[in-house]
Amino acid sequence: MRVQGQPYRTIWMEPDDSVWIIDQRFLPHRFVTQEVRTADEMAVAIREMHVRGAGLIGAAAAFGMYLAARESAATGDYFETIRKAAGKLIAARPTAVNLEWAVTRQLAMISDTRSSAENLQVLKQTAQAIADEDAAFCHSIGLHGSTLIRDIAQKKNGAPVNILTHCNAGWLAFVDYGSATAPIYEAFDNGIPLHVWVDETRPRNQGASLTAWELLNHGVPHTLIADNTGGHLMQHGRVDLVITGADRVTRAGDAANKIGTYLKALAAQANNVPLYVALPSSTFDWNIRDGIRDIPIEERSGNEVKYITGLHGNELVEVLVAPEKSPALNYGFDVTPAALITGLITERGICAAAEADILRLFPEKR
Amino acid sequence: MRVQGQPYRTIWMEPDDSVWIIDQRFLPHRFVTQEVRTADEMAVAIREMHVRGAGLIGAAAAFGMYLAARESAATGDYFETIRKAAGKLIAARPTAVNLEWAVTRQLAMISDTRSSAENLQVLKQTAQAIADEDAAFCHSIGLHGSTLIRDIAQKKNGAPVNILTHCNAGWLAFVDYGSATAPIYEAFDNGIPLHVWVDETRPRNQGASLTAWELLNHGVPHTLIADNTGGHLMQHGRVDLVITGADRVTRAGDAANKIGTYLKALAAQANNVPLYVALPSSTFDWNIRDGIRDIPIEERSGNEVKYITGLHGNELVEVLVAPEKSPALNYGFDVTPAALITGLITERGICAAAEADILRLFPEKR
Repeated sequence: MRVQGQPYRTIWMEPDDSVWIIDQRFLPHRFVTQEVRTADEMAVAIREMHVRGAGLIGAAAAFGMYLAARESAATGDYFETIRKAAGKLIAARPTAVNLEWAVTRQLAMISDTRSSAENLQVLKQTAQAIADEDAAFCHSIGLHGSTLIRDIAQKKNGAPVNILTHCNAGWLAFVDYGSATAPIYEAFDNGIPLHVWVDETRPRNQGASLTAWELLNHGVPHTLIADNTGGHLMQHGRVDLVITGADRVTRAGDAANKIGTYLKALAAQANNVPLYVALPSSTFDWNIRDGIRDIPIEERSGNEVKYITGLHGNELVEVLVAPEKSPALNYGFDVTPAALITGLITERGICAAAEADILRLFPEKR
Repeated sequence: MRVQGQPYRTIWMEPDDSVWIIDQRFLPHRFVTQEVRTADEMAVAIREMHVRGAGLIGAAAAFGMYLAARESAATGDYFETIRKAAGKLIAARPTAVNLEWAVTRQLAMISDTRSSAENLQVLKQTAQAIADEDAAFCHSIGLHGSTLIRDIAQKKNGAPVNILTHCNAGWLAFVDYGSATAPIYEAFDNGIPLHVWVDETRPRNQGASLTAWELLNHGVPHTLIADNTGGHLMQHGRVDLVITGADRVTRAGDAANKIGTYLKALAAQANNVPLYVALPSSTFDWNIRDGIRDIPIEERSGNEVKYITGLHGNELVEVLVAPEKSPALNYGFDVTPAALITGLITERGICAAAEADILRLFPEKR
């Protein structure tokens, strides 16, 4: 997608083989890019959320493995260094399944029958392939999902389709296009009238700082709302469709996504608003069914609730919004049971959030 | 309740007949009191939320009427000035029914058979009576509501009762004790082990800035959470009871309360967590039944979503947390249908959120 008119991905290699990311911590106020030089730096970038979002941290981890191989070629202790880096990268964020998926895929590419230079080349190509695949899958999600928006638009006789989204499952969360936003961009680019309700998404405000920024840059009509507002809007018929992303979806269709998604899903069900979860298949965890029981939920620092960073004049400052001595609890995700999900939008098409229908699209996982 | 060891109400008269409030805009960082000199100043204090909360703005409006009478005694054009002040005070916040209730009660006290000095005296006494009554009603809500907490505590064998509350229906929202917090303070003071989940309550953060501050001052164990977190906690059995306040409750039991309450009510129902709404009877709107259709919902400036005030060093600063050009929508309240409410805690006892049972406690409204 474009930033100030220039096409960008969220992670890329320059011709000199340097690896670059958009350091998203400064958005929407400043557009900052960062060269990531080592696997350790990549683990920090993932843990400290310079990069975040299911697809992007998968690609970031894949490039992190390439960086580990580049370092270890220099140090000599080849496999040991790469294995340690793999562990560090996987540990950087516990909930997202893409992280482990990408690292495991890279580990499987390494062969002791090849030279370290050849292995390095393979890891580079695989990282790029993972990034390209992520972009292609998101584009495909957009093609499939936009049919849902088009169908609602036809019933509304030209009135804009109101879509609510939570957190940022936008192109900033992937390599390009996004998951939840891909159908929105696709529909918008095809002239379908629409408007997006953007949940600010406390405590880290990914909606306010990233999704709003994305939509604004692309010219998509949108309105920022507090996370508390969606229920009221649905109750009054002002939401036609909810689309969110996911960080991990079980083979039975339970979806872990940013904390608060579950509350929106309850409101959608209570008010007969369809709710779709958009995801590339790398987000499926094929090993589990019961998401509430089996998906680990990341607990982050309570200070993310108590302190908020924003722009004051030209300066980014952090302000305290609660009594300093009050403790705070900060879970990053919650799980929406499959029963509350109207459907899943994947790169292979749309299916019900139910094992049989998921496996219809992914028969190789039977 | 106590502030730094000193007993305070949220609004009071000094022996010299000056009217004082706690200017809550600076909490939790600074404890500021303000003398309110005129009815206009009181309307501003209500509109700009120096004072807020159902009970307190009722008392504030009552004192505002007293101030209007004091001014008009000086200007001469007596009834006209008071009538204009009444309109301004009622218009300051559209959703809370206590405002109109208190102003109407004061208007009814004025008699043209009395001198303006006598009327002034009556308005002063009535304002004080409204404040005293508010405190007494909240204390009574505490006595009734604490039985719910005690009953759960008995089943938990000494483990703390986990109570979730949204917004601030604490003593800062009333003259004293609070509505939702009154049962909590009463139970805590009687040694019942409990812990409070405090929703931060975006966009104005009344939970983070007021409820947490209240509970911290009183020594009540509590944890601040993002509004998004309550569903996840209920899903995992970590909430035993939800108690909220209300800004307006219909005779059929629909409750308007701070935006986001509805989402918590849906989660409570889905997870079999009892949800009670605590209110003094002045919060009932006896004229309507269908709250979703008939309660006007205040729309406030979108800048309350985009800008957040907090402490930076020793300074209160406002920071921008979204793209400046993104529009934002800010509804202050939502309506929780009676069907999602386990019961109402009033000064006369606990009843179901249903017209017949409400009228059992308030037969004079039949």
